[in-house]
Amino acid sequence: MLKVPNNQVAGHQAGDGKLGPLVDDSGHFCKPLQSDDRGSKEVFFYTSFSSNTNIPNHIRRFFPNFHGTQLIEASNGSGKQPHLVLQDIFCGRLNPSIMDIKIGSRTWDPEASEDYIQKCFMKDTKRSSLALGFRIDGLQIYESEGSGFWKPDRQLIHEFTADDVRLVLRKFVSSNSSAGVDPDCTFASTVYGGSGGILAQLLELKEWFEHQTIFHFYSCSVLMVCEKESVVKEMSSGAEVKLVDFAHVVEGKGIIDHNFLGGLCSLIKFISEILTCSDVHTAKASLQDPRKNYIYTNCDTDN
Amino acid sequence: MLKVPNNQVAGHQAGDGKLGPLVDDSGHFCKPLQSDDRGSKEVFFYTSFSSNTNIPNHIRRFFPNFHGTQLIEASNGSGKQPHLVLQDIFCGRLNPSIMDIKIGSRTWDPEASEDYIQKCFMKDTKRSSLALGFRIDGLQIYESEGSGFWKPDRQLIHEFTADDVRLVLRKFVSSNSSAGVDPDCTFASTVYGGSGGILAQLLELKEWFEHQTIFHFYSCSVLMVCEKESVVKEMSSGAEVKLVDFAHVVEGKGIIDHNFLGGLCSLIKFISEILTCSDVHTAKASLQDPRKNYIYTNCDTDN
Repeated sequence: MLKVPNNQVAGHQAGDGKLGPLVDDSGHFCKPLQSDDRGSKEVFFYTSFSSNTNIPNHIRRFFPNFHGTQLIEASNGSGKQPHLVLQDIFCGRLNPSIMDIKIGSRTWDPEASEDYIQKCFMKDTKRSSLALGFRIDGLQIYESEGSGFWKPDRQLIHEFTADDVRLVLRKFVSSNSSAGVDPDCTFASTVYGGSGGILAQLLELKEWFEHQTIFHFYSCSVLMVCEKESVVKEMSSGAEVKLVDFAHVVEGKGIIDHNFLGGLCSLIKFISEILTCSDVHTAKASLQDPRKNYIYTNCDTDN
Repeated sequence: MLKVPNNQVAGHQAGDGKLGPLVDDSGHFCKPLQSDDRGSKEVFFYTSFSSNTNIPNHIRRFFPNFHGTQLIEASNGSGKQPHLVLQDIFCGRLNPSIMDIKIGSRTWDPEASEDYIQKCFMKDTKRSSLALGFRIDGLQIYESEGSGFWKPDRQLIHEFTADDVRLVLRKFVSSNSSAGVDPDCTFASTVYGGSGGILAQLLELKEWFEHQTIFHFYSCSVLMVCEKESVVKEMSSGAEVKLVDFAHVVEGKGIIDHNFLGGLCSLIKFISEILTCSDVHTAKASLQDPRKNYIYTNCDTDN
């Protein structure tokens, strides 16, 4: 029983006759292969990554499990199409807050076509990639049973400045993410901090990226997930970091991925600041911009 | 008594009626202010850096001492011109081997003019910056009293590939840097390794760059210096790292310099590899290219 996923925050989305990923009840995420060489590149990455014995196990857990490719009835009604069968990383999650962060000041690899480089270059400059070394590509932040999720639309996200990014990263771990209120960062120490928190996971990834020269991860995202309700109920945040989107991964050829590493370190710095001095940085940019008020979507517990 | 420096490996050079830096006998390096806004930007950087109390002392030592600006008789005979008066970091050095490494896959800051960005972008792509996150901009490697220095010309340096860079970094610490011979890396453990070695210094810088959000160092170079003769005679390598060239430094605005940090980590990886498995990586590219044979210059001990 394939269906449109509830917790997708970025990328092509199924529904309304469009082609997009589907999930089943057994924890699989079926992603249609993109028709140009991006599809085959992503298959190549997963195949190559799965069989590479130089990837340590503590790093492997940051990647979705790969179950091969399969012909599956496509979401746009075009019949059976090839899909990547991956782990559904949100399976069993209760109202997960999710942030999709595309890492790197460059989202294009140096060997891409001139047209493609030019297109990405413009986008990286316009959005925060060039300035911050990363950009938020999608997000949903769980608010409460009554008000559901804050899930800003794409246009709003595309306009995020450095101050907006600071604010959103604070909202991600706050119990009061309402418009006009300074985020309290109540959950920062359990979601970002601690030995199993997001910061510790990002630092583990960073250590690997300081040495690994196998792959260069252009246009790849770090997904950060947590469950605020679980913090309250079970004192466990379910904080998790995953890497996704490998359609632009290329061989490292003995050189570290300095583009990804630089961006990752920048994200780590933003998160560290929230942990060390969350009451000092009161990013106000978005709060003062009426367009950046909240757009609530229904709370969905069916996941 | 101002004179043309003996140990300059990159940048505009004085002599033949050209404008370039001069040194005196008291350990000063006088660098003419570039006429466009690069001159004033570099003065601004040194002034701002000198007075900034947030720069830790163990980091300050990586920067040349700054003694203000002064009107000095220019090397091109154009009369008195404003110069930056800096520490001559090669003063008292005996046949120093020097490498000037421009850090960052981008040498332009995002707020530069479109023309300037385009110019730098082309250069970064053509040379190794984009691929490696850094590029060698100049070098001299001391060979022996008889044969003096290996100081390849600019064109040759501009064509360095990743394998050439690996080879040159090995030659930098070898006792047999002659053409056609695999570098022995005899001095790797004393020059690159150890608590006072170049790797330890680069790692100290890296730690600072993971946190500092004061400056972004576009088009800035790491100078690596050592004295091979001293290793033999005194068991001290005189290994030193300095940062130079700040005409394109801009404010960090609360964001880390992910461009510099990424490139620095890439350089660190190249050097670590020489220390950990110097006998595995026998970069052969240059040795097989007849154009990359040595150009020796006279050994100069007058410094």
